[in-house]
Amino acid sequence: MERHLDQALARVREDLLRMAVTVEEMVRDAIEALTERDSEKAEATIARDQSVDAMEKQIDEAAQAILARHQPTAVDLRFLVTVMRINSDLERMGDSAVNICQSVEKLNREPQLKPYIDLPRLGELAREMIHESLEAFLRKDSALALRVTGADDKVDGLYKQIFRELLTYMAEDPRTVSRALHLLLIARNLERIADHATNIAEDVVFYVEGKDIRHPLL
Amino acid sequence: MERHLDQALARVREDLLRMAVTVEEMVRDAIEALTERDSEKAEATIARDQSVDAMEKQIDEAAQAILARHQPTAVDLRFLVTVMRINSDLERMGDSAVNICQSVEKLNREPQLKPYIDLPRLGELAREMIHESLEAFLRKDSALALRVTGADDKVDGLYKQIFRELLTYMAEDPRTVSRALHLLLIARNLERIADHATNIAEDVVFYVEGKDIRHPLL
Repeated sequence: MERHLDQALARVREDLLRMAVTVEEMVRDAIEALTERDSEKAEATIARDQSVDAMEKQIDEAAQAILARHQPTAVDLRFLVTVMRINSDLERMGDSAVNICQSVEKLNREPQLKPYIDLPRLGELAREMIHESLEAFLRKDSALALRVTGADDKVDGLYKQIFRELLTYMAEDPRTVSRALHLLLIARNLERIADHATNIAEDVVFYVEGKDIRHPLL
Repeated sequence: MERHLDQALARVREDLLRMAVTVEEMVRDAIEALTERDSEKAEATIARDQSVDAMEKQIDEAAQAILARHQPTAVDLRFLVTVMRINSDLERMGDSAVNICQSVEKLNREPQLKPYIDLPRLGELAREMIHESLEAFLRKDSALALRVTGADDKVDGLYKQIFRELLTYMAEDPRTVSRALHLLLIARNLERIADHATNIAEDVVFYVEGKDIRHPLL
């Protein structure tokens, strides 16, 4: 029974990591589709979301089947609760990558508004946060997880800067409004992806330390 | 032991409903703060989010303690998984209500851009969806839950209409850009609240029927 449980936990862990790799690639490709003005890449990225949705369902089912069959306690229970939470955050990240690609497709129908500098930086930051939060999960490394939660301030600062700059474009030249708005939605989605990575990092601390560090000001 | 489990489940259910009532009130007050241009109401709503965050932590802890102590199966296990999911969606709705109130505070520093008609309608739709998804949970009514998931199309249609209208404002008069943008962010947050209500409705179907209806196209 014990060995069956361990095998089942290892399998769900592998599935979750496979899903994380897919989502990280989707975010990377969404940013490349933007900077390379590559609508085909955007479309291909949107198409991958279906497999992420399927993985989400399958992982939730597997986690619940283990809970029902093996009734794990302590760290195994925390592991499964964490898997279900990370699963949900990954799926929502996939949705954000899709939203970005939909904006990219619209942007590519018009000339490029401006060279993209801060937006790819924001994207790179968000992608790193996904990668490191999952790395922290893999290694049960709560110190790394805490560093990820710290990076969220940098993301917020960059997002605000992009927001102000695009607002200036729109106010100065009405012809830029539609493009600036889509760039702004992309920035917003990247900021949300970073938020989800922060959630994952907080979940890792809960899993490793048994401590709930969400909403630290309470 | 059985009676202890039932009591513990009843308690976590009550806590979740108390949290849902708070979040529904926050969404209602956020819309009123917008339409009545009431910055004090916006501020008071923002302040309530801390209690929502505290409730989220407490409900998660309680659900996990029940899982660890009673190792429930079948419908009780589905109930607890559903509670944890609804808990997370309610907390994110509270965050969206806060975002709306922050935009309201900025809007109230300038003259009103236009009479608000579609935006309060969108808000009312989202608030109804919260109410009915929780009602469906209370009554274990999967037919009502399915009706809530159906309402999401109406929300998306209204959101797109608001988006197009505000885009026109911005393109025609640069002085409207900042205000139109905040109205757009409010619409976006209301649409997200409706998404979370849809998630809750899907969770209710899972709880009652044991069927995962997310991503129906798979």
